[in-house]
Amino acid sequence: MEIDLKQPILKKNDTLAERNRALFAEKKVFVLNILASPGSGKTSTILATIEALRDEFNIAVIEGDIASSVDSERIKAQGIPAVQINTGGACHLESDMIRRAVEVLNLDDLDLVLLENVGNLVCPTDFDLGENAKVMILSVPEGDDKPLKYPGVFQVAQAVILNKVDTMPVFNFNNEAFVSEVNQLNPAAPIFPISATTGEGVEAWASWLRDQMLAIQ
Amino acid sequence: MEIDLKQPILKKNDTLAERNRALFAEKKVFVLNILASPGSGKTSTILATIEALRDEFNIAVIEGDIASSVDSERIKAQGIPAVQINTGGACHLESDMIRRAVEVLNLDDLDLVLLENVGNLVCPTDFDLGENAKVMILSVPEGDDKPLKYPGVFQVAQAVILNKVDTMPVFNFNNEAFVSEVNQLNPAAPIFPISATTGEGVEAWASWLRDQMLAIQ
Repeated sequence: MEIDLKQPILKKNDTLAERNRALFAEKKVFVLNILASPGSGKTSTILATIEALRDEFNIAVIEGDIASSVDSERIKAQGIPAVQINTGGACHLESDMIRRAVEVLNLDDLDLVLLENVGNLVCPTDFDLGENAKVMILSVPEGDDKPLKYPGVFQVAQAVILNKVDTMPVFNFNNEAFVSEVNQLNPAAPIFPISATTGEGVEAWASWLRDQMLAIQ
Repeated sequence: MEIDLKQPILKKNDTLAERNRALFAEKKVFVLNILASPGSGKTSTILATIEALRDEFNIAVIEGDIASSVDSERIKAQGIPAVQINTGGACHLESDMIRRAVEVLNLDDLDLVLLENVGNLVCPTDFDLGENAKVMILSVPEGDDKPLKYPGVFQVAQAVILNKVDTMPVFNFNNEAFVSEVNQLNPAAPIFPISATTGEGVEAWASWLRDQMLAIQ
């Protein structure tokens, strides 16, 4: 006997994702779902992205965590509205959580919402949140073999960010193998090597995101 | 702004846990909630426990996993009824899942239900499932410092099993430090050093469990 809660949970999630998508389209707000492991630099990448785009666009952040509000405090310290979602044990965000979070944001005034999903390379992959695009962040210290071990998250992303590229010499990261593997899994996805802390590569990433945003206006 | 889903989830869980507890008392079935990390030997310990007690008691198993049914297949291969719960991404079992699972077991015919919780030392700690007792399994390769790092799970357990004791020399496990730390966190909990694979120590553990079971008859 097997009780599979995944299918009913996914079905309910997908229905609510469609409602989110309709709302975001109506409000002309671009929503980016950001997937990565813990410690890959999601929040730092969000802060670097905000820095690159805040003069042109109104931005807000939704932070997903199993517990704590450390990440949203870092965002708010930069004068950007941030909503923290503590998932109560779930290792992914769901559409219903996003609906609750956007209720407290003023979507009419926003151009871009960055969703920091729960740090995990497996659980969030299957959950459509109604977003316009998914981006996957890998950091160099995690190793160049991650596309082989977690193909799903590389396949669902519209773009891949490789963060902490300044540490590549230290970690013996085989960039050629990494790029080749990502290209095989997801030929359409551009790869953006960046360092969120030094700012290297952030402009190219922000430029891609800007193009995606302008495409929905 | 913070959206904390943990408190409402816990409250709903606790209400349903009381219903489970009443049902288990009515049916005179003893339910043991087993908490541990992935790879600590939960399923092997369950199999060793079944071996030690199956001549005296009717036993069933509920297996919690984020996905897959590998563990319940191992149990069923031993002729023991097993229900697999795939949590759909949650890193713990909840009372509602247990209620669904026991609906497919014939509680009138059972004396003991072993619940294998999702492999995680944090999430399952706060979730009462209506069980009669919680047991925490640590395995030697995880290290003697785990009580310091994850005090909560050692505090909620009525007993602690130290599994894979046959590997103690290899891993430089400081048993004295471990026992002292557990005793400080939870003075009432006995510690059972076992090896689920060699059978060492299993009889002492099974004897403790038998005493707990007889106490509710």
